[in-house]
Amino acid sequence: MEEPEAAALAQYDDFHTIDWVRDRQRDRVRFRRMRRMKRGSIWERIKQANDAWGGWLVVLLVGLSAGLSAGVIDVGASWMTDLKRGICPQNLWFNEESCCWSDDNTFADVGCQQWKTWGEIFIGESEGVGVYLMNYIIYVLTALGFAGLAVVLVRWIAPYACGSGIPEIKTILSGFIIHGYLGKLTLIVKSMSMMLAVAAGLSLGKEGPLVHVACCCGNFFSYVFAKYHRNEAKKREVLSAAAAAGVSVAFGAPIGGVLFSLEEVSYYFPMKTLWRAFFCAMIAAFTLKYMNPYGTGNLVMFYVEYDTPWKLFELLPFVLLGALGGLIGAVFIKANLWWCKKRKNSRFGNFSIAEVLLVTLITALIAFPNPYTRQSSSVLIQHLFRQCGPDDGSSLCDYIDNNRTINVNNPHYPGAEAGPGVLKAVWQLLLAALFKLIITVFTFGIKVPAGLFIPSMAIGACIGRIIGIGVEQLAVSNPEWLVFSSSCGNSISNCVTPGLYAMVGAAAVLGGVTKMTVSLVVIMFELTGGLTYIVPLMVAIMTSKWVGDAFIKEGIYDGHIHLNGYPFLDNKEEFTHTTQASDVMRPRKHDPALSCITQDEFTVGDLEQLLDETEFKGFPVIVDKESQRLVGFVLRRDLKIALRHARIRNEEIVSASKVYFTEQSTRYATPGQAAPLTLRHILDMSPIQITDATPMETVVELFRRVGLRQTLVTHNGRLLGIITKKDVLRHIATLANQDPESILFS
Amino acid sequence: MEEPEAAALAQYDDFHTIDWVRDRQRDRVRFRRMRRMKRGSIWERIKQANDAWGGWLVVLLVGLSAGLSAGVIDVGASWMTDLKRGICPQNLWFNEESCCWSDDNTFADVGCQQWKTWGEIFIGESEGVGVYLMNYIIYVLTALGFAGLAVVLVRWIAPYACGSGIPEIKTILSGFIIHGYLGKLTLIVKSMSMMLAVAAGLSLGKEGPLVHVACCCGNFFSYVFAKYHRNEAKKREVLSAAAAAGVSVAFGAPIGGVLFSLEEVSYYFPMKTLWRAFFCAMIAAFTLKYMNPYGTGNLVMFYVEYDTPWKLFELLPFVLLGALGGLIGAVFIKANLWWCKKRKNSRFGNFSIAEVLLVTLITALIAFPNPYTRQSSSVLIQHLFRQCGPDDGSSLCDYIDNNRTINVNNPHYPGAEAGPGVLKAVWQLLLAALFKLIITVFTFGIKVPAGLFIPSMAIGACIGRIIGIGVEQLAVSNPEWLVFSSSCGNSISNCVTPGLYAMVGAAAVLGGVTKMTVSLVVIMFELTGGLTYIVPLMVAIMTSKWVGDAFIKEGIYDGHIHLNGYPFLDNKEEFTHTTQASDVMRPRKHDPALSCITQDEFTVGDLEQLLDETEFKGFPVIVDKESQRLVGFVLRRDLKIALRHARIRNEEIVSASKVYFTEQSTRYATPGQAAPLTLRHILDMSPIQITDATPMETVVELFRRVGLRQTLVTHNGRLLGIITKKDVLRHIATLANQDPESILFS
Repeated sequence: MEEPEAAALAQYDDFHTIDWVRDRQRDRVRFRRMRRMKRGSIWERIKQANDAWGGWLVVLLVGLSAGLSAGVIDVGASWMTDLKRGICPQNLWFNEESCCWSDDNTFADVGCQQWKTWGEIFIGESEGVGVYLMNYIIYVLTALGFAGLAVVLVRWIAPYACGSGIPEIKTILSGFIIHGYLGKLTLIVKSMSMMLAVAAGLSLGKEGPLVHVACCCGNFFSYVFAKYHRNEAKKREVLSAAAAAGVSVAFGAPIGGVLFSLEEVSYYFPMKTLWRAFFCAMIAAFTLKYMNPYGTGNLVMFYVEYDTPWKLFELLPFVLLGALGGLIGAVFIKANLWWCKKRKNSRFGNFSIAEVLLVTLITALIAFPNPYTRQSSSVLIQHLFRQCGPDDGSSLCDYIDNNRTINVNNPHYPGAEAGPGVLKAVWQLLLAALFKLIITVFTFGIKVPAGLFIPSMAIGACIGRIIGIGVEQLAVSNPEWLVFSSSCGNSISNCVTPGLYAMVGAAAVLGGVTKMTVSLVVIMFELTGGLTYIVPLMVAIMTSKWVGDAFIKEGIYDGHIHLNGYPFLDNKEEFTHTTQASDVMRPRKHDPALSCITQDEFTVGDLEQLLDETEFKGFPVIVDKESQRLVGFVLRRDLKIALRHARIRNEEIVSASKVYFTEQSTRYATPGQAAPLTLRHILDMSPIQITDATPMETVVELFRRVGLRQTLVTHNGRLLGIITKKDVLRHIATLANQDPESILFS
Repeated sequence: MEEPEAAALAQYDDFHTIDWVRDRQRDRVRFRRMRRMKRGSIWERIKQANDAWGGWLVVLLVGLSAGLSAGVIDVGASWMTDLKRGICPQNLWFNEESCCWSDDNTFADVGCQQWKTWGEIFIGESEGVGVYLMNYIIYVLTALGFAGLAVVLVRWIAPYACGSGIPEIKTILSGFIIHGYLGKLTLIVKSMSMMLAVAAGLSLGKEGPLVHVACCCGNFFSYVFAKYHRNEAKKREVLSAAAAAGVSVAFGAPIGGVLFSLEEVSYYFPMKTLWRAFFCAMIAAFTLKYMNPYGTGNLVMFYVEYDTPWKLFELLPFVLLGALGGLIGAVFIKANLWWCKKRKNSRFGNFSIAEVLLVTLITALIAFPNPYTRQSSSVLIQHLFRQCGPDDGSSLCDYIDNNRTINVNNPHYPGAEAGPGVLKAVWQLLLAALFKLIITVFTFGIKVPAGLFIPSMAIGACIGRIIGIGVEQLAVSNPEWLVFSSSCGNSISNCVTPGLYAMVGAAAVLGGVTKMTVSLVVIMFELTGGLTYIVPLMVAIMTSKWVGDAFIKEGIYDGHIHLNGYPFLDNKEEFTHTTQASDVMRPRKHDPALSCITQDEFTVGDLEQLLDETEFKGFPVIVDKESQRLVGFVLRRDLKIALRHARIRNEEIVSASKVYFTEQSTRYATPGQAAPLTLRHILDMSPIQITDATPMETVVELFRRVGLRQTLVTHNGRLLGIITKKDVLRHIATLANQDPESILFS
């Protein structure tokens, strides 16, 4: 009968932090028990082999399922997105791109022949005010329908499916428990509502939510293997790998995914996990590749290839783009956090369905007239990243003499002067960037799945392309300036590639919003397939981070973590204050004394009273009241379960029974006394203890690196108090002039 | 007068481990003091700005200098290597490749016209026995000359310049002090002798030593900035970045370099370091690129581009290659460690110059006749990785109908049947692989700079190419087999690319020898520029690691760390035993009691006697002998300096003076007693303490993650003993059935 109790003791309550030290110990105990049975039956041997390979098998399964989910979501979202604008009569389940595959004219502003807009279907014409209005109305209505369905699914079936999920996953990976956040229902609802939300044309991406979906897959498969299922610390190894797979399928960037998991979301990342995360990310990327959702056979999403290398003088506009990106990121973070706080603290938060519909309506109404906001953000990004070819009909490539690649050696550089189309496009892009920036502030945080990567990149790509066109036109009209003539020679019409600026701008804004660094550089170069452009990307991302940090230190994900009051101890922030453990520990000066248990003086009744009267998560056990010498630590949950079990199983245990935490105790009652109860097995004999003079920076390091939940504070061998993770977080918040009460959980 | 003492207290002795906790605290104290002066003079402000930017400036300088050193070494080594075989009369300082640049026939077995072998110069003919002998003799003699010069430089000027340096750098980064190992003299001598050793044709590479050279640069520049110079923990951040730069320039692989630093060498790697390491690696790679030592303008060393993608059935030979790589790696590690142990423990170790000359002689004598061993290993690798082109004249590409790319649709597949040249090449490659394997075992460990990457890759590339040719011929002669006909269709002559097998084989053997995983995959794909071949590389490297681990768990670097007895606590190994802190702590059962100091009972004379009689590195300070309650910890070095200073400065301090570690002490002597001495300022009030019941796995985690040097063990608040890093390492060695006395340092 020891087993169920042990299993119960191993669990954690909802919204609580796990004890990494204890879980790691438990896993090694399990491993040793497994090894000891080595000479066991065949069944035991199979179980052992399964255990040894389980780590690899589970990441294989996670990779496969993450790739599969991403493929289904990609295909579904792209089909539904185009459904807002029209249909492919030959093949109803084809989106515009697949439908027009033979036309090879997808990105031009005019559509292809096979693809029919709703106006063409219902009225039979493709031009005219009536057709335009018809298309407009159907566009808005389908958008509202999709968004409404998405929010209803989220609200009524799986509330955890909303948002990007990355802040919560960061918190979960740091050791927090949110039951159901990675559940099967969340997985299904999030996948479906994500497609709907993207299709509704809302200013959001599916990249962040894909990380959540991948982590749901990770959680699902970790149930199959006991070693992960029963151990929250081990489960987080699988989740780290799943997060890598999520980014891997979102961008086709396996290495970037691993680095993202390492840099951004993971907390405890042993080397073994690195290797498995890499494997998982690879499998996911290749599953997606073989599903081929983009129909291009390319793992790389926004594959670019530019004719000309970048020039040294371009570093100046890249730095400018970086600074702009940092600025935009800071503005976005501040505005979005302000709005989310407002929503959270006012009654307005109760009308989430109405809010989603309103945002969708406004988005659809404003987005439709501008061709750059009407198309989906990822198509827009692809469009902006591209270099203008000689037979490119879009207005972005409307240069006065369009055969620029041919006229390279023409001394008059005719091919690069912007035509009216380009000028119009610049205005439209500026409006698109502004609109997207504003609407995304209000979109990120509504009750549908919403990622930030694609909208941020779209904003950055618009601005980058505008600046790129500016630099290009400056070079074309002033070819005699030393800076241009020395770098470009007489190929000035081909010297500046605005598409590269769009790429750099996208990275800069994304960097400014998320504060990612190395992983973003790697994602960008895997995304575009260009190792050559690492230096421009790095310059822009670095500038963006520095400029952005001057205004706001925390990235959007950390901001949302704080907003929700999750207990997240950031790995990246350095603790630079002079406080000591004695300043943080409880009890404070005028508080009642610390609730301790002496090792051989308490009765069952005393303990039950202690549990009733206090709400502490655990109690130190001491030798006696005078010496205050520490013996160990007992968790509230364990104590409660143990006392209840003892009362149920043994009728001799009554309120007057003495409870012994010591090793040698009289197990049998002395005559005239109630039967004693020994609870040494629930006593943690190795609590981490520090002295009261320990600088808080060392305490914070201990909490971060070892994954503590609490530590006991002593002075000259006497127990003084306790510091929990919540105390540390509140202390950090106080020192940062934030409200310490904003830390809600422990 | 407090300053010099504080500075002296901050230093560490040679061959000692640093205290990460203390150094991190010291850096934050420095940072806070700096910030407090914010409203100071302009000079203070400049100092602050310098401090804030110092971190970036130092990695910039390290990157530049590492790139520069690598460029010089590359050019020098390649020129001297070719000097063994001939000279470029038009341009004496050109190597064969630069000399033949116009000929475009470099890799063919026949030389070009501009380049003259020694035979052509001295005899005027290029054929004949006399010429051959002449070339042979000059080859051997120059090799001996180069090697002799290299070993003399190393032996007489900078003994630390020998070997690969990676084991020592791993140890140094884990917090060990080896004075002079990263000094300026080592830098210069290592650079020079590295060129000479490579030029001597020894079976060694310059990639590992380049990491050492880069770390020397890192150490050099960290002297410029006080915050790095005075703090060993901070200095290691620069060194981590420098190690990344070293790999970055060695292979033109900046991302791989960062991952190598993260996975393989670094110990303490905060996120800030990741970003700086990345920056440093990028700068180094681009410096090298602008120096253009290969004359190709390509950052990628062994750039490959294959016409055909890999097929699924090829995974089988890739797995086989992986298994072979793991096997070869294990054999190599065991043989090399056996030989190095032998050398170390016998008198033979004293004849290092003779040993180098002997190895060089044997290498040169055997290498010259075989064209694949005569050329330098990196040229050989490049040769083996390449796909046979239609006009490739080398014997490796001697297929019966050589225009294989043209005859793709010819049903008789004539172009892929191996000619006599290929068969001869296979034999020569087999001999080359065998020879290189054996000679490298004896080469790695002699007293010249010697890297392992290139020789291992060369062995793997030979074997891979052989297997690749085998699979190719199997497919060509049995095109009707289902496995071939289904995957290749009627382009069977083009189906299997032996060059890809060489690449996979190289990765497999390198993985088997070094036990690298993720970083190796990334290095390989940066090295070859092919994201497409990640799956074959991963499969081979994974198999290699699994097969290799079955024979020997530790990589070659860890093996050499153990051989040298360095105190290295591996991050990757898991501790899986049931021992507890009480099993490891000292004093053991029958040892004399722990040497403690009571806080207010010892006199100066007592302490001096204690220092004389014991050799412990530090002493716990307790309240009194009865209660054994812990107050703090004092380091031997600090105590010694403090007592000496007190004696010198204050004549009233005599042997009978009481020493107080308490806060309130009578600073003035009571009449009739000697003047008291207060030493609270050298007392560490926050030693890390654990209970005796703490499982050793938690203790090991604490040592690893927090970077402890020692921890104090208590039971119920009483001090019981102490565990040092050396104790932990010896305990691990004992449990692994190794000699605990092999851990020499602490």
